[in-house]
Amino acid sequence: MPTNTLLLVLDLVGTFAFALNGALTAVRTVRLDIVGVITLATITAIGGGILRDVVLGATPPAPFSDWRYLTVAAVGGLLAFFLGRLLVRLETTIMVLDAAGLSLFAVTGALKSLDHGLGPGQAIILGAVTAVGGGTIRDVLLGTVPAVLHSGLYAIPAVLGSAVVVGAAVVAGADGLGQGGAAVAVGGALLCFAVRLVGVRFDLNAPAPPRPPQAG
Amino acid sequence: MPTNTLLLVLDLVGTFAFALNGALTAVRTVRLDIVGVITLATITAIGGGILRDVVLGATPPAPFSDWRYLTVAAVGGLLAFFLGRLLVRLETTIMVLDAAGLSLFAVTGALKSLDHGLGPGQAIILGAVTAVGGGTIRDVLLGTVPAVLHSGLYAIPAVLGSAVVVGAAVVAGADGLGQGGAAVAVGGALLCFAVRLVGVRFDLNAPAPPRPPQAG
Amino acid sequence: MPTNTLLLVLDLVGTFAFALNGALTAVRTVRLDIVGVITLATITAIGGGILRDVVLGATPPAPFSDWRYLTVAAVGGLLAFFLGRLLVRLETTIMVLDAAGLSLFAVTGALKSLDHGLGPGQAIILGAVTAVGGGTIRDVLLGTVPAVLHSGLYAIPAVLGSAVVVGAAVVAGADGLGQGGAAVAVGGALLCFAVRLVGVRFDLNAPAPPRPPQAG
Repeated sequence: MPTNTLLLVLDLVGTFAFALNGALTAVRTVRLDIVGVITLATITAIGGGILRDVVLGATPPAPFSDWRYLTVAAVGGLLAFFLGRLLVRLETTIMVLDAAGLSLFAVTGALKSLDHGLGPGQAIILGAVTAVGGGTIRDVLLGTVPAVLHSGLYAIPAVLGSAVVVGAAVVAGADGLGQGGAAVAVGGALLCFAVRLVGVRFDLNAPAPPRPPQAG
Repeated sequence: MPTNTLLLVLDLVGTFAFALNGALTAVRTVRLDIVGVITLATITAIGGGILRDVVLGATPPAPFSDWRYLTVAAVGGLLAFFLGRLLVRLETTIMVLDAAGLSLFAVTGALKSLDHGLGPGQAIILGAVTAVGGGTIRDVLLGTVPAVLHSGLYAIPAVLGSAVVVGAAVVAGADGLGQGGAAVAVGGALLCFAVRLVGVRFDLNAPAPPRPPQAG
Repeated sequence: MPTNTLLLVLDLVGTFAFALNGALTAVRTVRLDIVGVITLATITAIGGGILRDVVLGATPPAPFSDWRYLTVAAVGGLLAFFLGRLLVRLETTIMVLDAAGLSLFAVTGALKSLDHGLGPGQAIILGAVTAVGGGTIRDVLLGTVPAVLHSGLYAIPAVLGSAVVVGAAVVAGADGLGQGGAAVAVGGALLCFAVRLVGVRFDLNAPAPPRPPQAG
């Protein structure tokens, strides 16, 4: 499978994971009606990619130039709307889907950023922005502080996954990732996914700031 | 009146309606000062069009390339600031103005999206995004869950109005909407407006999700 | 120092001020961990410039095409994370840093908008948007109503600073600001800074709307 096809597949799987996540979050937290659920599912699914493409000047963004994104997002939202009641461990499912979308988007976001000529550092950051973007818009719309701000290991795994593929691409140089590209992309995503799940499982957090005087 | 002129007029009328709506919302909910009122009026009025144009890559967006948008938005905000006290049915007025902006932006957003080469499905969605965009940003800034998520018939009329003009354009094909364009655009907007008002009047909602297990 | 270099320096100093501000706000209001603090610092620091450049179609935005922005933002965030406890008047420091970022971004935003061919009115508004953008995104992420809506003199000084440089550029005409450019830019920023501080010090507010009937 050529690298571009692989990236498209990873991007669509990430879109699907975030659509399920957005819809289940809507069902769980605010009991939106079906339109609200599918709207939130779609925004969560395509938000990160739109941010990425707008920053890259790659307009119209992928979700508006390729019909598969919106279709996958809507199908995922609809599915979650009807199947949500069958899930006994909703909380865990929501978290795992979020971690999956995070991982896939970190990798595809970083590689697309490199493709558009961004420097390595910027590509890592924009990969992470792609990864956390949809979930952040979801949380802002629902009126909660986004996970990227308060959840210890949310941005870090995204940056790690993003850095793996950017690092490999920099090492590979002008020849591109070639045959090993698939392995690198999947490896970066798995690393991000694993670090995120370990962080949630053991409730790990990055260090908090020293207490400010007025709180002491 | 040529189609382009008609679209500009509809866009400016929508901008005016949303500016009044944003200003009256500011007056009613948070008693902002005059600067806050005009700021919120302007953001509500031009937010949807900016989202649309940024996604289309049509930069600078219309409100920054054509001085009439910002002028109409500011005048609308100022007018509402001073006349707000005269309105005895503020709640209803705010809702009707919002429905008017929604309807006009759904139509102009969809047609501009087609003009920029988007596929029919994407044009319908981006038309709806144009319609709900300004109000959504308004609600997020005020810290309330946006209508597009919780209000049964908010996104649906926008999609309907948008779909009418896209459908007509697809049927008309390469010749464009021609003489009938005005009728189609106004018809799509009226359909959206009517469905939205009926939805509010009879408090219609789309079906809610089946109860999730933990709520049962 | 040529004007372009001056603008870059002002832009980077503004980025640094907003990064410190964002990090200290994070430390004070929600006790985020180090990742959250640096994330909020970075978003506050580069948010306004990204909005500006996306609207101008100048993609990728400066913070993604010039590595110095992200570096300055991260260093500022890190510094504030560790030094925050040493500041005895945190509230005042946060406000002054915000005013500094506001002033510098109003000026650089307006001049960059003119450079990209916007009309004077639009350049003034986009300068002000650049100035208030990062702080507004910061407030939305933290779930508070943004200062630009409720704080009497927040948008006004930004518009003033922006208007000074646009006015000077219009008067100078096709020759550009030339040797006097630095003085004009610094003057505009100082005016904005002074008006903002006076507004906060004396708790000045713009007039509130006449009471709506239902509140009377």
